[in-house]
Amino acid sequence: MNRGETGYETWLRYEEITDSALHTQYRAYFQTIEIKGNSPIIESAKEELMQGLRSLLGVTPKCLSATGEQASCLIGTIADVAEVSQAIKERLREEGYAIYSEKGRLVLVGKTETGVLYGTFHLLRLLQMRDHLHDLRIVENPRNQLRMINEWDNMDGSIERGYAGGSIFFEHNKVTNNLQRIKDYARILSSIGINAIAFNNVNVHEEETKLITRKFLPDVAKVANIFRQYGIKTFLSINYASPIQLGKLETADPLDEKVRAWWKETVADIYRYIPDFGGFLVKADSEHRPGPFTYGRNHAEGANMLAEALAPFGGIVLWRCFVYNCLQDWRDRKTDRARAAYDHFKPLDGLFHDNVVLQIKNGPMDFQVREPVSPLFGAMPKTNQMLEFQITQEYTGQQKHLCYLVPQWKEILDFDTFANGKESPVKSIVDGSQYDYKVSGITAVSNVGNDENWTGHLLAQANLYGYGRLTWNPNLSTEEVTTEWTRATFGDNEEVIQTIHEMLLQSWLIYESYTAPLGVGWMVEPGHHYGPNVDGYEYSVWGTYHYADCHGIGVDRTVATGTGYTAQYFAENYELYEHLETCPDSLLLFFHHVPYTHKLKSGVTVIQHIYDTHFSGAEQAEQLLESWRSLEGKVDSERFQQVLERLEHQAEHAKEWRDVINTYFYRKSGIPDEKKRTIYPI
Amino acid sequence: MNRGETGYETWLRYEEITDSALHTQYRAYFQTIEIKGNSPIIESAKEELMQGLRSLLGVTPKCLSATGEQASCLIGTIADVAEVSQAIKERLREEGYAIYSEKGRLVLVGKTETGVLYGTFHLLRLLQMRDHLHDLRIVENPRNQLRMINEWDNMDGSIERGYAGGSIFFEHNKVTNNLQRIKDYARILSSIGINAIAFNNVNVHEEETKLITRKFLPDVAKVANIFRQYGIKTFLSINYASPIQLGKLETADPLDEKVRAWWKETVADIYRYIPDFGGFLVKADSEHRPGPFTYGRNHAEGANMLAEALAPFGGIVLWRCFVYNCLQDWRDRKTDRARAAYDHFKPLDGLFHDNVVLQIKNGPMDFQVREPVSPLFGAMPKTNQMLEFQITQEYTGQQKHLCYLVPQWKEILDFDTFANGKESPVKSIVDGSQYDYKVSGITAVSNVGNDENWTGHLLAQANLYGYGRLTWNPNLSTEEVTTEWTRATFGDNEEVIQTIHEMLLQSWLIYESYTAPLGVGWMVEPGHHYGPNVDGYEYSVWGTYHYADCHGIGVDRTVATGTGYTAQYFAENYELYEHLETCPDSLLLFFHHVPYTHKLKSGVTVIQHIYDTHFSGAEQAEQLLESWRSLEGKVDSERFQQVLERLEHQAEHAKEWRDVINTYFYRKSGIPDEKKRTIYPI
Repeated sequence: MNRGETGYETWLRYEEITDSALHTQYRAYFQTIEIKGNSPIIESAKEELMQGLRSLLGVTPKCLSATGEQASCLIGTIADVAEVSQAIKERLREEGYAIYSEKGRLVLVGKTETGVLYGTFHLLRLLQMRDHLHDLRIVENPRNQLRMINEWDNMDGSIERGYAGGSIFFEHNKVTNNLQRIKDYARILSSIGINAIAFNNVNVHEEETKLITRKFLPDVAKVANIFRQYGIKTFLSINYASPIQLGKLETADPLDEKVRAWWKETVADIYRYIPDFGGFLVKADSEHRPGPFTYGRNHAEGANMLAEALAPFGGIVLWRCFVYNCLQDWRDRKTDRARAAYDHFKPLDGLFHDNVVLQIKNGPMDFQVREPVSPLFGAMPKTNQMLEFQITQEYTGQQKHLCYLVPQWKEILDFDTFANGKESPVKSIVDGSQYDYKVSGITAVSNVGNDENWTGHLLAQANLYGYGRLTWNPNLSTEEVTTEWTRATFGDNEEVIQTIHEMLLQSWLIYESYTAPLGVGWMVEPGHHYGPNVDGYEYSVWGTYHYADCHGIGVDRTVATGTGYTAQYFAENYELYEHLETCPDSLLLFFHHVPYTHKLKSGVTVIQHIYDTHFSGAEQAEQLLESWRSLEGKVDSERFQQVLERLEHQAEHAKEWRDVINTYFYRKSGIPDEKKRTIYPI
Repeated sequence: MNRGETGYETWLRYEEITDSALHTQYRAYFQTIEIKGNSPIIESAKEELMQGLRSLLGVTPKCLSATGEQASCLIGTIADVAEVSQAIKERLREEGYAIYSEKGRLVLVGKTETGVLYGTFHLLRLLQMRDHLHDLRIVENPRNQLRMINEWDNMDGSIERGYAGGSIFFEHNKVTNNLQRIKDYARILSSIGINAIAFNNVNVHEEETKLITRKFLPDVAKVANIFRQYGIKTFLSINYASPIQLGKLETADPLDEKVRAWWKETVADIYRYIPDFGGFLVKADSEHRPGPFTYGRNHAEGANMLAEALAPFGGIVLWRCFVYNCLQDWRDRKTDRARAAYDHFKPLDGLFHDNVVLQIKNGPMDFQVREPVSPLFGAMPKTNQMLEFQITQEYTGQQKHLCYLVPQWKEILDFDTFANGKESPVKSIVDGSQYDYKVSGITAVSNVGNDENWTGHLLAQANLYGYGRLTWNPNLSTEEVTTEWTRATFGDNEEVIQTIHEMLLQSWLIYESYTAPLGVGWMVEPGHHYGPNVDGYEYSVWGTYHYADCHGIGVDRTVATGTGYTAQYFAENYELYEHLETCPDSLLLFFHHVPYTHKLKSGVTVIQHIYDTHFSGAEQAEQLLESWRSLEGKVDSERFQQVLERLEHQAEHAKEWRDVINTYFYRKSGIPDEKKRTIYPI
């Protein structure tokens, strides 16, 4: 591994501590270390700690193993560390840990081995942040049970919506032999608390269908073995038609006895290879994927059949709610794709087995730069739910543009659903506390590929980092998470930290400002979803329209005059969105069709807002570039250059966005820019 | 071969004659046949004649071979047929033939063996048309020297812009072993007078570059051998960077001595394998293909270098003029792609060697359903020119829609360029008569693939047929050509003939009416070019814009206020197009930007014209379907069904075109349809 200059080491770079007082303090705490236990996970913790300390301190600490000598740093599970207080023991839950120090001695205890590993990463983070280790009283438990990553990797080595090279898992229709890279990925994920992964695409093609068979299970087991050492459970995405394609049955009907038997045998076989297999991730009846609808069964019947097969082994079913009509007639103004997930699933509340979790995208459409929170969150008290984010920047600049998504995710997690009256934020639904779900959590589509720096855009690593940290604790502030990542990745220079921190925090709103305005979404090139195309999805089958004409724009989703989508929200939010007077500007065109001359709460008209934001957005993209340029010589040249090239492209491409969008709306509305800036053609 | 029910036999179906008087007459003329000579081409003629007569008459005529007995039908070249009159001999030119009959005897003489073959097809056509054979006095010479087909076939088996299956020439990066299909294609082409073919795509990719090397020349020679037997010369499309890619040279500069020597050796090698090789077809400096511009050379220097290598062997260079900036900034209103060919090539008049022919697309853009004739025709008196059509329906419905192009081609061929004063139609330029070109003619992109019926849409065979017949004689009327094809393909039922004839003749204008209006073009999905997308090319790099805003639409190409493109035409046409008052409605938006309320010569406004034509176009597409349905039981069921399915799709897709175009313009203009028909959204 390089010394961090390629970006390969991510935030696990562990730059050497130069402050001599701190160095002395740290060395004292790690004079001697005793780590109890020797299981694979404990070995991982030990390896991480030793490697991290060597790098941070420039020395290799002495490791004691039950010699009777008291170590300055003691690490182990609560079962192994006798001296841990009952009070602490009681506060630790599954995967939790405590770190405390007094009188020059530091103790790290995990409720489980995995807790030890997480605690180790926390400890190292304290050093990365240059925090004092005196008088620590840390007790940490993850807020979410499932903290998951979905890879959209195909066995041919490609990644659906991947913007950082090819798969690190597959090549040439086989599981890769490069297990070291997978191990490095496991380290990265574990360091931010991820505990579950499905490493094949939710669109399960022909070869991938066979991953659950003996042809590939030995290879899947190899991958699972690596992840297991880092506390991460392995899941597989499955093809709902597997009984037909693999089992030579004539049906995949979930109520068919042969189908049920086939899945039971298949699941049993998987557990022979992977005893702690997590379960199945299922995209069914969605965008041409097979599913229970084919057989006149509903999604509860479809999911429960798999759940029954998995239950004896403790496995679960992650059932995606991304179900909608993807062959819509654009002339049909009554069907509203935004309604689809709620309309399909809400009536099934209570019918799902308790080892089924519904996986719900954050918004009702599809990971746009801005959309409202899905009304399905909180609407199913008797059904496990989890939240799906998209780290890979499909609609947010594809890791060519800087778009730091933590601020967006925070808004979503904090969004109050009013499901249980006030104070029912999304985070309280998906952490299971609101309705006492048996299984729940957060998942997200990975932004990682085999590019040397993992994410293509080096700064896009911050999205992966931030995602992990928020799934561990949604109450962390954007500032905390961002500072952690920036410092761990770029070191001690305060100007560098400050500059990058600001760039990250502004970037989402900048991206929003020069792309699709006021929550309308979808103004991208169809298919690959990169670059502006205002009418790209306007006459298509995908249910994604803006209805711009020469008078106005937006989708009327009100109960009063539109599709009635607003009624899917609990009363407080329904009232907010239903009425033009209360609907926030940022989502105006998602909920209402208004004339270009409609005055926003900001005081400007819709058309002037479009012009203003697109001019300023492109300028701000240029300023991002200038900010980065100011760091020349302060960031190592290779990583500086990597980021510089992306930002140069972004600044140029933001102008293309600005000009296409402004021209489109000027041509359509005929209303000139009040400030008389250049709009083509003039 | 099947008995014609799949469409495989095309117009060479030779349905048996049921009229007994005619049958008797024909049998008398073909009682005994003597065919002089036994070269491969004469053998082809004999095989065609025997096969055709067997099928038409149900008997095998007796073939005499120089027994002294006088045959009722005598066939041969003028060298072999002693009795042919001096008057006839003098009227025959290269590839010409005469057919005459008197006193129950029929004589067919060709100036050359190829003439004999063409005459044989003509003779068979007389029988297909059920014409009397008495007192024939036919003397035929082709009007065009080159009557060519360009295949856009790739060695991987795909066809660029192919809509009838895969290649019949290549599969798996090799030349196919299915030489019978190539022979059948040669027969089809020869029957309509085609005498030249380039059978690999003008976009020459990596493997195809090697077609001119010993790796593939033996296979190319096999194909050339087949075509030679049908009077067709073989050409190859070449990669201008071949000296680099194949010759390991560092340059492909046409003035570099090593490059010149490399091409000379390469050409000499080709002629070792194919002694009558036709020459090279070259797409250079066009859409990212390499060319002389890379080395600061002009296209005359680029083409002449190849011409010099080919000259000793009688080979020629077909140099495409499709050269334009394909990375245009849509904001740049000064660059006009329509100007490009003229601007690039006109200044080079007189600089090309006499075995170079400039291959010019019919219009200045790219095979749109309607565009003006390229102003380059007639503008280069000292430079050989040929015309390029596109039989494959890239922008005209992709052989899913019926679009019979003979009427369009007739308009183009008859278009008066005024190059030499009045009466300088395009056909007189490209047949070489206007400027006494040494080499000239017509070429076209084939619409054939390995679909059983060759062209996907059975009725699209009529385009291939019509193309061949018009290249032989541009003065044939659309009605003649269409009647010939319909009768040969569908037999004697007058209702069938009449119905299909009408469908064909209306189809181009129907397609135009529901797609891009008034000559504006390009309102298609980018990339594959199928289906409506009004803004699809509006903000792209391709130089293809319509500039529609809320007030009006069209491209101002006038000298007075626009790009000045009109000045490329000779005075009479310049005057015609420059002025709004004289510019024909059908090309209005190609030449002028006008308000939607502009009144056309037809009396309606532009916007109302758009609505009217799109409503009526979709209705007419429905009527095409109804017309075809009326033939159920009168056309064999397999071919009936084939065509029915295409027409059903067309009728449906025409409605999509209608609705997208009307909605787009209604939304943009805000002007309602006077007739209050349904436009979405309403």
